[in-house]
Amino acid sequence: MKYVIGLDYGSDSARAIVVNAATGETLATAVKYYSRWQKGLYCNPAINQYRQHPLDYIEALEISVKEALAQCPAGTAENVVGIAFDTTGSTPAFTDANGTPLALLPEFAENPNAMFVLWKDHTAIKEAAEINEACQKSDVDYSAYEGGIYSSEWFWAKALHVLRQDEAVRAKAYSIVEYCEWLPALITGVNKSDDIVRSRCACGHKAMWHEKWGGLPPEEFLTSIDPVLAGFRARLFDKTETADKPVGHLSEEWAKRLGLTTNVVVAGGAFDCHMGAVGAGVTPHTFVRVIGTSTCDVMVADYEEIGDNLIKGICGQVDGSVIPGMVGLEAGQSGFGDIYAWFKRVLEFPLHNIIGQSTLIDDNLKAQLIEEAADRIIPALTVEAEKIPISESTIIATDWMNGRRTPDANQLLKGTITGLTLSSTAPRIFRALVEATAFGSKAIVDRFRNEGVRIDNVIGIGGIALKSPFVMQTLSDVLNMPIKVCRTDQACALGAAMFAATAAGVYNKVEEAQAAMSSGFADEYQPNPQNAVAYQEIYDNYLKLGQFTEKELFS
Amino acid sequence: MKYVIGLDYGSDSARAIVVNAATGETLATAVKYYSRWQKGLYCNPAINQYRQHPLDYIEALEISVKEALAQCPAGTAENVVGIAFDTTGSTPAFTDANGTPLALLPEFAENPNAMFVLWKDHTAIKEAAEINEACQKSDVDYSAYEGGIYSSEWFWAKALHVLRQDEAVRAKAYSIVEYCEWLPALITGVNKSDDIVRSRCACGHKAMWHEKWGGLPPEEFLTSIDPVLAGFRARLFDKTETADKPVGHLSEEWAKRLGLTTNVVVAGGAFDCHMGAVGAGVTPHTFVRVIGTSTCDVMVADYEEIGDNLIKGICGQVDGSVIPGMVGLEAGQSGFGDIYAWFKRVLEFPLHNIIGQSTLIDDNLKAQLIEEAADRIIPALTVEAEKIPISESTIIATDWMNGRRTPDANQLLKGTITGLTLSSTAPRIFRALVEATAFGSKAIVDRFRNEGVRIDNVIGIGGIALKSPFVMQTLSDVLNMPIKVCRTDQACALGAAMFAATAAGVYNKVEEAQAAMSSGFADEYQPNPQNAVAYQEIYDNYLKLGQFTEKELFS
Repeated sequence: MKYVIGLDYGSDSARAIVVNAATGETLATAVKYYSRWQKGLYCNPAINQYRQHPLDYIEALEISVKEALAQCPAGTAENVVGIAFDTTGSTPAFTDANGTPLALLPEFAENPNAMFVLWKDHTAIKEAAEINEACQKSDVDYSAYEGGIYSSEWFWAKALHVLRQDEAVRAKAYSIVEYCEWLPALITGVNKSDDIVRSRCACGHKAMWHEKWGGLPPEEFLTSIDPVLAGFRARLFDKTETADKPVGHLSEEWAKRLGLTTNVVVAGGAFDCHMGAVGAGVTPHTFVRVIGTSTCDVMVADYEEIGDNLIKGICGQVDGSVIPGMVGLEAGQSGFGDIYAWFKRVLEFPLHNIIGQSTLIDDNLKAQLIEEAADRIIPALTVEAEKIPISESTIIATDWMNGRRTPDANQLLKGTITGLTLSSTAPRIFRALVEATAFGSKAIVDRFRNEGVRIDNVIGIGGIALKSPFVMQTLSDVLNMPIKVCRTDQACALGAAMFAATAAGVYNKVEEAQAAMSSGFADEYQPNPQNAVAYQEIYDNYLKLGQFTEKELFS
Repeated sequence: MKYVIGLDYGSDSARAIVVNAATGETLATAVKYYSRWQKGLYCNPAINQYRQHPLDYIEALEISVKEALAQCPAGTAENVVGIAFDTTGSTPAFTDANGTPLALLPEFAENPNAMFVLWKDHTAIKEAAEINEACQKSDVDYSAYEGGIYSSEWFWAKALHVLRQDEAVRAKAYSIVEYCEWLPALITGVNKSDDIVRSRCACGHKAMWHEKWGGLPPEEFLTSIDPVLAGFRARLFDKTETADKPVGHLSEEWAKRLGLTTNVVVAGGAFDCHMGAVGAGVTPHTFVRVIGTSTCDVMVADYEEIGDNLIKGICGQVDGSVIPGMVGLEAGQSGFGDIYAWFKRVLEFPLHNIIGQSTLIDDNLKAQLIEEAADRIIPALTVEAEKIPISESTIIATDWMNGRRTPDANQLLKGTITGLTLSSTAPRIFRALVEATAFGSKAIVDRFRNEGVRIDNVIGIGGIALKSPFVMQTLSDVLNMPIKVCRTDQACALGAAMFAATAAGVYNKVEEAQAAMSSGFADEYQPNPQNAVAYQEIYDNYLKLGQFTEKELFS
């Protein structure tokens, strides 16, 4: 028997799963929350500064792997043949020449600028604007394969921001590493920055790396943005690798720390949603959506299908970023479940601000009551919203309360709710918000199709896909496509396990691992054709409303 | 000493005030709720059918007047010299040849079609559309002095609807009377329909009566809409009177029933907001607003100022409808406080639907807690909304959740909230709604001004004017005008008392009664010039947003 370990590093915690490499069966799962992060250290939400300490990642690695193995039958650890990581991204950190993130050096141990800059850190808005300006001026638009709009959430913007902010980091920084590259390097004992294997997924989607221009953008382009970037390009990388390739074996130190052998092959790293798409069963013409607070939408296309055509207004297209040998395409909505959570917060006003101050009940009971009420708002809204016939669903909303990621990124956009009357109830508004998130999804699907990418069906993973049949049925009706929902709630970690198994040689190709190790599907939603027709009409108004607010109010 | 009684008949109750005719001092106030109405009789909210039984009005008259007199010093009743009524409108009922509302005849006692059709009854939408079509086809637009759009809330639409609906009423109906005309007729002992004195205010604003075409629209126009209207015109009236004219003295029967003398002069009736404007101190160039669930806005203009010019898109302009000898102008917002109440209902969702179902506390405590929370939502929102600087007030709303009455009536319009982000809290949304209601007010003021009517200052009466400094200050800032708020919370009844005193000969003119009997002002809001500039910018976006939704979504 051969086993593999898939490690999925999310925003708040890391998960380790131990998987049977032949069948995909999950033997054990263990989760470790990041302890410094949980205390709010190194973050400043007021300015959207979110940093994570590499020690949080190291602790999560040791604890989750050991806990998962402890749940397995005796002898499992000895038969683990591969490990792979997926992580959030773009989440870069500066390193010294040894490839060590600066925060692991004693003099930088408490400096947030020496830590990993989490994907959702928005401190580099100004720098992103400068990069976009440089791309527009340049003969070559280096952001072209990343959707044509460089984000403040990405590699170069964050690096530039930190270099400008922090003289000490600037003096010490040798190179920059993405989270998903550093963990494999760490456990394979890499001790030179130049030896770190670079992730095709991270570099292609976030660092403007492309073969067309020989790797990263040229030095003169980077220094034209700011001379402070001088020298980094040469110390970074030319080559990137797909995640099915081994980056090495487990080092002696880490074999010992994890209770594994040095025979374990460590695969390349990639972003969570990309490995999640593989874990969910992505194939050409299948639109895989990780549906949570926001969505990350991933597709693959045969090179023959789209060639070198640029898909306009998506987040990026990178050869091999998802499945080696195919073009990986990424899109997403910047708000999905977050929009429902926002409306829940609005409705919580009387709970916190009034019942919380009441003298009618004691504090203990008050807290219980408020918690119970808060927990039940979305379920109760769902029950009522589901009863409303589409013909009466006359409130129209846009889903841009957190800006718009795709199609055509625009962070200035804001959300709208119209069609309100004195009889518009909370469930009616909630229903409109659910429809709006589905319309936002349709706008992405339509863009792919208009750009020549065929989509036949949809696979959903993530919290909302598994937990909200109402949302998923609405989505199926609006998209007028069937939607399958993966059985596993750990599709990202399972995807990592598939890469681990492929890197370890259990399979020749990721597609073989997918075929053998799939979790199957828990549900399949079928579109109701009548609803699809009704929603098309509302969608036309959604588009009109969106176009107006984009052009006239939030430009 | 001379006293007068002002009677204000609202939607749910009637108020009687006993007033010193020389000073305007209020000696006593008594309120009587309509008992059949309170039980929900004769109404069907599902189809917006709202009917009121004349017995409710009669009971309210006797009880409120007697209760008010009972609070006064001995000898007051003997020195009452005048009575006047204001009522809601257009609130018509069919009468027999004696001028008796049909519901007072035994065979019609329980027939809602034989009762007064309350202003907010919307059963005649189809009939209003037919009347508008006829006006458009006709050489003369008989709706011209009523804003050019005839409403389902008005006289002819309601009459036509009932005639079509009810054969028994059709067979018995001799004429039609407005609520504010019937009460003076009743207590002066009128026993012939033809002797009822007709209200300039009611007929000019709601029944298409105008001197220009010799009174009501011609018979052939009315029968072209439906032959069922044949004969009514001749049995209705040619002449109308302003409310300062006596319609008679108290009949012996009613003098006895009310504990007054037959020396009491009864003045003509008018609509509540019109007499309210007089009570509040309306003069040319002053915009008087009754601010409650909706607004009723009233102005007067010297004939020399506006002549026969039609003010486009308001509710009506009628010579003598407010102050005899001046043109009375009416406008209004169809939602004001109702919009805040709507948002409150949305926020109550977790109270009713979750806490109401909780097993953590007993039903009694639950009910108390929910009631307390519901009562405090708007005050708590106000406290928080007031703290938000205008520069951060980036949510924009329109105030059309109940359609738009003026400028340019359009009941198809719906409300919008835009500029929403994940950090839009309930108080931020509430603030936008308050601003939206103020912007709706500004749209009316701007229309008057663009049509050549000068407005220098504003007087507010009604619940919101007295109770919400935040709303009133916002309104003052948005309008960039000072707003005075009347001291009395019974401006309508006080206005009726002024008409009673004038009809009784205490004063020669209504303006003299205004000067002597004014309640003075409780507050005066001054616009903050910086805020006024900031709001002008938001207002421009309000207009853009409104124009888009009107043109593209709700037409």
